[in-house]
Amino acid sequence: MSSFGHIFKVTTAGESHGKSVSVIIENCPPNLPLVEEDIQPQLNRRRPGQSSITTPRDEKDRVTIHSGTENGRTLGTPILLTVPNEDQRPKDYGDKTIDLFPRPSHADWTYLEKYGIKASSGGGRSSARETIARVAAGTVAEKWLRQTYGVEIVAFVSSVGNINLFDSPADALSSDPSFLALEPTLTRDRVDEFLPVRCPHPDIARKMEDRIAELRDAHDSTGGTVTCIIRNAPSGLGEPCFDKLEATLAHAIMSIPAVKGFEIGSGFAGAAMKGSVHNDPFFVPETLSAEETSRLTGGLPKSKLQTRTNHSGGIQGGISNGMPIVFRVAFKPPATISQDQTTAKYDGTGEGVLAAKGRHDPCVVPRAVPIVEAMAALTVADAVMLQHSRQMGRSMQQ
Amino acid sequence: MSSFGHIFKVTTAGESHGKSVSVIIENCPPNLPLVEEDIQPQLNRRRPGQSSITTPRDEKDRVTIHSGTENGRTLGTPILLTVPNEDQRPKDYGDKTIDLFPRPSHADWTYLEKYGIKASSGGGRSSARETIARVAAGTVAEKWLRQTYGVEIVAFVSSVGNINLFDSPADALSSDPSFLALEPTLTRDRVDEFLPVRCPHPDIARKMEDRIAELRDAHDSTGGTVTCIIRNAPSGLGEPCFDKLEATLAHAIMSIPAVKGFEIGSGFAGAAMKGSVHNDPFFVPETLSAEETSRLTGGLPKSKLQTRTNHSGGIQGGISNGMPIVFRVAFKPPATISQDQTTAKYDGTGEGVLAAKGRHDPCVVPRAVPIVEAMAALTVADAVMLQHSRQMGRSMQQ
Amino acid sequence: MSSFGHIFKVTTAGESHGKSVSVIIENCPPNLPLVEEDIQPQLNRRRPGQSSITTPRDEKDRVTIHSGTENGRTLGTPILLTVPNEDQRPKDYGDKTIDLFPRPSHADWTYLEKYGIKASSGGGRSSARETIARVAAGTVAEKWLRQTYGVEIVAFVSSVGNINLFDSPADALSSDPSFLALEPTLTRDRVDEFLPVRCPHPDIARKMEDRIAELRDAHDSTGGTVTCIIRNAPSGLGEPCFDKLEATLAHAIMSIPAVKGFEIGSGFAGAAMKGSVHNDPFFVPETLSAEETSRLTGGLPKSKLQTRTNHSGGIQGGISNGMPIVFRVAFKPPATISQDQTTAKYDGTGEGVLAAKGRHDPCVVPRAVPIVEAMAALTVADAVMLQHSRQMGRSMQQ
Amino acid sequence: MSSFGHIFKVTTAGESHGKSVSVIIENCPPNLPLVEEDIQPQLNRRRPGQSSITTPRDEKDRVTIHSGTENGRTLGTPILLTVPNEDQRPKDYGDKTIDLFPRPSHADWTYLEKYGIKASSGGGRSSARETIARVAAGTVAEKWLRQTYGVEIVAFVSSVGNINLFDSPADALSSDPSFLALEPTLTRDRVDEFLPVRCPHPDIARKMEDRIAELRDAHDSTGGTVTCIIRNAPSGLGEPCFDKLEATLAHAIMSIPAVKGFEIGSGFAGAAMKGSVHNDPFFVPETLSAEETSRLTGGLPKSKLQTRTNHSGGIQGGISNGMPIVFRVAFKPPATISQDQTTAKYDGTGEGVLAAKGRHDPCVVPRAVPIVEAMAALTVADAVMLQHSRQMGRSMQQ
Repeated sequence: MSSFGHIFKVTTAGESHGKSVSVIIENCPPNLPLVEEDIQPQLNRRRPGQSSITTPRDEKDRVTIHSGTENGRTLGTPILLTVPNEDQRPKDYGDKTIDLFPRPSHADWTYLEKYGIKASSGGGRSSARETIARVAAGTVAEKWLRQTYGVEIVAFVSSVGNINLFDSPADALSSDPSFLALEPTLTRDRVDEFLPVRCPHPDIARKMEDRIAELRDAHDSTGGTVTCIIRNAPSGLGEPCFDKLEATLAHAIMSIPAVKGFEIGSGFAGAAMKGSVHNDPFFVPETLSAEETSRLTGGLPKSKLQTRTNHSGGIQGGISNGMPIVFRVAFKPPATISQDQTTAKYDGTGEGVLAAKGRHDPCVVPRAVPIVEAMAALTVADAVMLQHSRQMGRSMQQ
Repeated sequence: MSSFGHIFKVTTAGESHGKSVSVIIENCPPNLPLVEEDIQPQLNRRRPGQSSITTPRDEKDRVTIHSGTENGRTLGTPILLTVPNEDQRPKDYGDKTIDLFPRPSHADWTYLEKYGIKASSGGGRSSARETIARVAAGTVAEKWLRQTYGVEIVAFVSSVGNINLFDSPADALSSDPSFLALEPTLTRDRVDEFLPVRCPHPDIARKMEDRIAELRDAHDSTGGTVTCIIRNAPSGLGEPCFDKLEATLAHAIMSIPAVKGFEIGSGFAGAAMKGSVHNDPFFVPETLSAEETSRLTGGLPKSKLQTRTNHSGGIQGGISNGMPIVFRVAFKPPATISQDQTTAKYDGTGEGVLAAKGRHDPCVVPRAVPIVEAMAALTVADAVMLQHSRQMGRSMQQ
Repeated sequence: MSSFGHIFKVTTAGESHGKSVSVIIENCPPNLPLVEEDIQPQLNRRRPGQSSITTPRDEKDRVTIHSGTENGRTLGTPILLTVPNEDQRPKDYGDKTIDLFPRPSHADWTYLEKYGIKASSGGGRSSARETIARVAAGTVAEKWLRQTYGVEIVAFVSSVGNINLFDSPADALSSDPSFLALEPTLTRDRVDEFLPVRCPHPDIARKMEDRIAELRDAHDSTGGTVTCIIRNAPSGLGEPCFDKLEATLAHAIMSIPAVKGFEIGSGFAGAAMKGSVHNDPFFVPETLSAEETSRLTGGLPKSKLQTRTNHSGGIQGGISNGMPIVFRVAFKPPATISQDQTTAKYDGTGEGVLAAKGRHDPCVVPRAVPIVEAMAALTVADAVMLQHSRQMGRSMQQ
Repeated sequence: MSSFGHIFKVTTAGESHGKSVSVIIENCPPNLPLVEEDIQPQLNRRRPGQSSITTPRDEKDRVTIHSGTENGRTLGTPILLTVPNEDQRPKDYGDKTIDLFPRPSHADWTYLEKYGIKASSGGGRSSARETIARVAAGTVAEKWLRQTYGVEIVAFVSSVGNINLFDSPADALSSDPSFLALEPTLTRDRVDEFLPVRCPHPDIARKMEDRIAELRDAHDSTGGTVTCIIRNAPSGLGEPCFDKLEATLAHAIMSIPAVKGFEIGSGFAGAAMKGSVHNDPFFVPETLSAEETSRLTGGLPKSKLQTRTNHSGGIQGGISNGMPIVFRVAFKPPATISQDQTTAKYDGTGEGVLAAKGRHDPCVVPRAVPIVEAMAALTVADAVMLQHSRQMGRSMQQ
């Protein structure tokens, strides 16, 4: 389906060769200040062409709010955001062999299997442009979360190929000292100081940049990982049993093109830990500041307990506990590479060579950073609204 | 929410201290032969007490079909399955300190935050008994998939702590020779030859069993991973863009208690691969056998192409391509351990010691095998029904 | 589908010949006092056999709460309610011609068309027993609405055949003086003083009773109408544009077996009115009593305005305005009659005579009263929870 | 919510003062020929200004397909349709008293209650322009239904005020000879021969036109009814128990602005009928023509039985039986009238006079005709896709 969320719900439309990529946001709370300028910055962060190692196409990606606001405030009604596709001519992705061969590890073949019709771009909605709609909608969710609960969502590149920001990709994030140092304070501005790779460490960022350049010259591509931190999410989010918060986050993140893995808190490394080490003991934090208390008046209350470690990644029993929500995402290498590839023909009559052509983005993870942030924001906003509906009913009962 | 799926939809109810754990299955296709004996075997595989290293409690877990069938056939109407809780008295999980302290890394605290009421079992629906409903419903999905498309779903334990069936947990499954040897033929019966650990390798299974026994004696617990293979899933499954098949699978699997990570195909290891290696070239397989052709008459057609490698894990652009769907799941160590733990009190007045008591399951992954299979079956069955609705509309159009 | 509602959501299962009729209620707010005794009275009101003019079968219909409560309070987790079918043998609805002929205006034929399989009861879930699940779930919704907002839902029989409580069936309820006299104070107890017909007027109730007896003796049946009043529903309920409150109410009510029409406020008679008469002018009511104010603390605020007339039926622009919500429902005559009927055979080979047998309920509207109340309660409870989620987000924004 | 349908799903956005009114259609089957010219005619039928008795504003309402098609065929991906609002300045609905008073029986007050923010148009999405999105989406559903099953949907005006096309508004349509004469053959072209009122009877149409002109001159307005016929809908549509076809139709239709009542088949008049008269006997129709058979190849089969009467309105037990689906809809008189009205102020400080200004549409039912057709098409298309998913699963089972 093309919609996500139960209450704070988004529905997207648009492929690279149509008139626009668009999204309708339902049930955004009313009275939120919202203008195009709130949305554009994350779209700009998503844009290709931010440096020599990313794809050189210049897509302008200007968003327009069609409905759901007036005088710079949301009305509570559906918000339609559209971003025009500036060049709608079928793009020059390769020579004519592209009409004969479904590209390996692209969506050309599976879209044909599913829909029985071949769009000029091959895999229709599997285009990276589809993610524009996610990012646009995510900024709205995020703004509301920030204004109401001070939620902060920051993602960054944690590996490119086998160059890792942290010691080992198989280690638990939740016990990595370098990660724990970044967790409380990392900002998007800080992450963007490390453009084009968005890995917040000077030496490692440089190595990643070099590696990407090397692969670009070798007409190849590489995968990588993105790590995301959500600070100040209220406790009590997540709807057991099937819509546990880690489950809806995984759903959201695994729906991003090219994602092959998702882990939360200790993740895969947690599978090798002992319970006595993995368990997160509770303690009683200092009381809230006046500022925090006032912000939460009328909202979900803040948890009275915190945990000393956070192997749980901010979620226990499928429900947020108020600690930072931390997850890591694996992206495969882009399937489009500037090399000839031997593969089978659409018509099943045999194999041949799909000719290489053009220049392509050898690594998408830096651009994936705002997409991951957007999907996290959409997931949390929906969970907050669901908990609001319960909280208010529960309060009146007592 | 407590339901999963769009058409083949399940809704579950029941916590460990109520009268039953139950599930309603909506829109199961009519005329499927279905009796309790189809469901019970997977419930038995899920039961604790299968050996000395699993928890010694004997839960009988007998399923009853309340509705939706007649004369051993489904009617197409909702199927209610219930499994009674035989002992509904609050269980003896520890001494009275359990009333003072939320158990670390349990759901006690977060359920209280979410619902504002403390069930006698602490985290209400986070109990492992909730998974009975998933397994019961999964068998129905699975039977229908097997009868219509010959779908086979087999999961097994691939690691316990740091004992791994495959060379390294950080390697891509999709290029591991030992895994590739198992992939085409592994059966549940074969997996169950390696009880109590369900790891299909004699030496490694033995090591895992020893490790679990050691941790049990040390009053500790361990995590592990489960790997799952889905063979013969039709191509064309998965609903872009948000309900890509890997996204709904991730949702399903990450909703299982204690899961911390999910990866498909090359997974996290794929993030370190080059595109030229990761891309899966297509080839033209031999034609279908007469038996296969006859089975598919009236159903979704079989893909004319296959891929030489399967780093995609059977899904490209969010849509199945007909190759085996392969994924790996990380389970954290059980939070319940027979050790004293220092933690904070419910009332926020300070910390103390939560006393250990009783004996607990030191490793849940062997019992998680049928749960993973069930959630995979539910996900695929729903995707098949969605594609059926499109396929029939598309066929008539052409 | 077999579920209703977005947040306060119910999913039902069970046909007359299975083990039970059951319902799972998701997202009932936690901490609501709830025991079987809260549910049973409405089930009893729904039961047949309440007098000589209703069907003589005695169904006990005892409800059991399987999950979702502890110590007489809801936990916030799914509530499974089951009501066993005491006699599960295929019932004796007629002689053997019932195997040859689909009964006219029954669901026998359409269920076969839809599902391709014939249940022993013919139209499977179209049985009146299915409504047990609705009534059971409705009592829970209703209790919560009453405790939080003082909502009162009262339905009654307004016509049987062409005997009408109000002057003309084509008149607008919203301007009928007799109706306006009942609207503010009518209770269920008062309605039940007029058993077996539940029409709150001594003379008219007697005429209806006579008419039903007459039709019973003539082996025939009759339709009728039920009118429903919802008092104290908060303003702001209903989700434009597709889930306007009158639309979800209509959905709920039209899903009750045998319903052929639904109208709200002025209804069909409103189509003949002039705007200058139909418009409901606003006025400023007296301030709230202290008791009312205290009840609403923390909940949705009460509307500052009321309307002098209520042709809108309590809903304007799809959203409740705080005035009584008033609607009328048309039920067709029961299809099961004790007369021979000429009709076609299942196999399409021709026509013949479906023999009459047994005694049947000649008029269902008295028993439909609690079913209408239940569906109204489910609709309003869901709308309240949706508005709660918005209200809390909106409050924090301002 | 702003979406409708489970599979063939539409989500709308836009109020009268934003940039556009738009709709995303999800899961339209692929390969359907679709261009703007398929959509525009129904939008034109919906437009005001078609004659002197309808509102004189000229809205152009040109639709653009943004996505989901290529080379004039649907891709199976989401279709975004937008219709720009040409004049986005707040309209001149009255003098400044409109800022002080919520208009009686408008949505001004309830939108403020719900959202806590006042749009310049008062009731935001309650504007008649919202229905543009319904009509646009409905044409797509309708085209697919017509091409696959030959479905024909024709609505017309059956009453204006108390001028009725049929003998009495309280009579059952299903037994009215004049209606039965129209039912098999009435077309939209024939209905449009009776512009501006769209009542297919010369004398009665003239009376209606006169009555509307009279009310216009009296600065008043009137309600009316629309009747709709759906021919050739497949049997087996509708999802018991809550999504019976009449329930989803009622939901769809009652969500249209100004609708106060819905009845199907015998409707409210059926409540006064006896079962022996109301029951629809089955008979065996002649066999299908070769043309019909070929159309249905691969689709849902045609029912082998038909009924001699159609008091059921084409739906039995919530499931279509293949007979014409017939329903009637009541529209209240427009709330906007050119008369002064005494009413209360927004701020609750008392009452005053809301001054009349401008000229308004005294009767909306002629323009409502394509809106009713659109909502019927959306409902049936979704039901067909749901039944497709079941039918294919059921066929493979047997």
